[in-house]
Amino acid sequence: MLPAVTLTTDFGLRDAYVAAMKGAMLSVEPSLRLVDVSHEVAPHDVMEAAFLLRQVVPHYPDGTVHLAVVDPGVGTDRRAVAARFRVGDTTHVFVGPDNGMLALLTDGMSSNDAPAAGGLSGLECVVELDRPEFWRTPRPSSTFHARDLFGPAAAHIAAGRRLEELGSPIDEIQRLLWAIPLADDEGVRGWVVHIDRFGNCVTNIPGHLIQDDPRVHTAKCYVGGAVLRGIHRTYADVAAGEPLLLLGSADFLEVGVNGGNASSLLTIRKGSAVDLVYGEAP
Amino acid sequence: MLPAVTLTTDFGLRDAYVAAMKGAMLSVEPSLRLVDVSHEVAPHDVMEAAFLLRQVVPHYPDGTVHLAVVDPGVGTDRRAVAARFRVGDTTHVFVGPDNGMLALLTDGMSSNDAPAAGGLSGLECVVELDRPEFWRTPRPSSTFHARDLFGPAAAHIAAGRRLEELGSPIDEIQRLLWAIPLADDEGVRGWVVHIDRFGNCVTNIPGHLIQDDPRVHTAKCYVGGAVLRGIHRTYADVAAGEPLLLLGSADFLEVGVNGGNASSLLTIRKGSAVDLVYGEAP
Amino acid sequence: MLPAVTLTTDFGLRDAYVAAMKGAMLSVEPSLRLVDVSHEVAPHDVMEAAFLLRQVVPHYPDGTVHLAVVDPGVGTDRRAVAARFRVGDTTHVFVGPDNGMLALLTDGMSSNDAPAAGGLSGLECVVELDRPEFWRTPRPSSTFHARDLFGPAAAHIAAGRRLEELGSPIDEIQRLLWAIPLADDEGVRGWVVHIDRFGNCVTNIPGHLIQDDPRVHTAKCYVGGAVLRGIHRTYADVAAGEPLLLLGSADFLEVGVNGGNASSLLTIRKGSAVDLVYGEAP
Repeated sequence: MLPAVTLTTDFGLRDAYVAAMKGAMLSVEPSLRLVDVSHEVAPHDVMEAAFLLRQVVPHYPDGTVHLAVVDPGVGTDRRAVAARFRVGDTTHVFVGPDNGMLALLTDGMSSNDAPAAGGLSGLECVVELDRPEFWRTPRPSSTFHARDLFGPAAAHIAAGRRLEELGSPIDEIQRLLWAIPLADDEGVRGWVVHIDRFGNCVTNIPGHLIQDDPRVHTAKCYVGGAVLRGIHRTYADVAAGEPLLLLGSADFLEVGVNGGNASSLLTIRKGSAVDLVYGEAP
Repeated sequence: MLPAVTLTTDFGLRDAYVAAMKGAMLSVEPSLRLVDVSHEVAPHDVMEAAFLLRQVVPHYPDGTVHLAVVDPGVGTDRRAVAARFRVGDTTHVFVGPDNGMLALLTDGMSSNDAPAAGGLSGLECVVELDRPEFWRTPRPSSTFHARDLFGPAAAHIAAGRRLEELGSPIDEIQRLLWAIPLADDEGVRGWVVHIDRFGNCVTNIPGHLIQDDPRVHTAKCYVGGAVLRGIHRTYADVAAGEPLLLLGSADFLEVGVNGGNASSLLTIRKGSAVDLVYGEAP
Repeated sequence: MLPAVTLTTDFGLRDAYVAAMKGAMLSVEPSLRLVDVSHEVAPHDVMEAAFLLRQVVPHYPDGTVHLAVVDPGVGTDRRAVAARFRVGDTTHVFVGPDNGMLALLTDGMSSNDAPAAGGLSGLECVVELDRPEFWRTPRPSSTFHARDLFGPAAAHIAAGRRLEELGSPIDEIQRLLWAIPLADDEGVRGWVVHIDRFGNCVTNIPGHLIQDDPRVHTAKCYVGGAVLRGIHRTYADVAAGEPLLLLGSADFLEVGVNGGNASSLLTIRKGSAVDLVYGEAP
């Protein structure tokens, strides 16, 4: 059985883009198994796509191919790449434009170089997808490389081609960096990096910072219009309608409201600051 | 060939939740066939999810597994369950939190104990999913059981495990009840329980009440800003832009507008009352 | 391996319609491979569905079945049809209501009878789906033929049945025509026919008109609140935030903004006129 191919784009589901890309992939290999991660990434938001995919990759089987196309530079000289990387004891493949996404996917996400949430680790091999015989056409549309280049390349890889057949090895990739929280003796400042569908506000303060430091559990947390204290286990640990802090399923500090929408109730937005302030020494 | 697994959640498609859950499932059994029912259920709306799934289950083949996670009580002591139930001459499996959804799925939906729309019938077996060896991890996230517990359990069942292997039989499940219409000699009062994408307003007045009682066909129907009379067969039975009553595809009385949006044109909302008033005796 | 079945509807993903239809299809043939094109077509907008599907069909393998149900006349005497048609050197099957969609899918889209974008060509065979033994039930719901008739028929075709088994050949189909641009010695008037998720405005001015006529490349283009000149290759050919004209991936003239939303920035809507005015003769 062929490995699955996951799909992450900012194409939306109202247009023909996702379906055209899938057709080009199935024309390479009809037995592909395609799994949509999301096509609702905000237009051109490479960081959002990387944030989503980091939560997804570690749960997929060894050998899965992850096609991720958020590509504001389509048609320019930004490179098209495929990469093999390890997560724990499994190996995965990334296919997409070289615009920082791959770096964000494989780099650490924490303030102290600890292994990132999900355990994503280093690259094993990166190739530039420079062999047109693996594209849909040697003259791809200059605005739709997902259909004409990335999709077919991912399909060839899932069908068993080695990365080294599809392109030339390269040493450097485009770098983007995660904003990391600032920590000192008085507390931690982080930011809200994602608001989910329920209104939960996911910060960039990683789980290990919370689990390792007892001062966090008694710190005051200033976020949006609220001051919160204490890290809870789940939403229903507080009364219905009450806000709380918890360690979310992506292994970051999260602000929620039991049965409610923390973002709207507490006026928290993507980018809002989150300040954990430690108490007086006893 | 393995049975299909249908997926119904309130997770939306902008976040990583659905894809992470699917990854955990495919890690159990790579050849699973997953079919999305909807991930756009209103957050925490167990009744809406049950209403959707009742229209879906009867059309799936024998042995289909239905994973349904709308789970405001995640991480509390609400039980995780799997259940086998019959629909006509087919058997299906439900997997999800025990928060009333399973009861709503298998209970009658009508005012007079007639078989419910779609013919959903009683439970054959319910188990509590209390065997961690079938979870993704023995220490699941306290906020994401879909990924760590329900998804893997559903995957094991679709891959051939018996319910009794995954958990301990239980006798009682959490009960929720459908609001049922009130019927007397003068008419029927029901409620709008769903507005669909076209603006059609689906009520909880079941088909058999309409088909068996000739008085309904000459009754006046008060709903939103309209008074309607007569049960039509399809939208185009009235002029374009005109409202009508008909027996919808889910086998409930429905208010529509030919080529238009009944909800906005007639000011009908989820929860709006629908009154069928019989005429004078001849 | 069975051919894929693509699905295009206006049903949305919040209701049970798509999942019920898929269940009815999988009950005919459990090993079907279903690919969603879009279920977000505007309600009853047959032209929008045809426009999407034209961009999709040419990229699918030989033998693919395309189920397309945008069906304002469901339950009336409009016919249910299946058709075999050729695109380049591949053969495809259409299944859906006979309400103009099939004509729009296979007709030319250009102003001068040139082959249409994507190379869709003529019909080989059309049958009326008049054999109830291939439906879900001989008495289909009068409002949901996708579940009760079209879906099962498409499943039978993908599973290997010949069109001629499912229905009686017919000679005529319902005709709808694309609005075609007006061209004369002074310029071209076209219209915006689609706004995509990024705000790119796709016109009905076909690629061959642009590629064959050097006057187009120096023409002034009046559209929305902008006057543009020059046909670019890709978005990043202009500075960030600047508008541009380019030949889009669907092979039509398109108005975009590098890194921005052309529709909102330039006040362009579906239906807006696009005027290319040639310059003075040198």
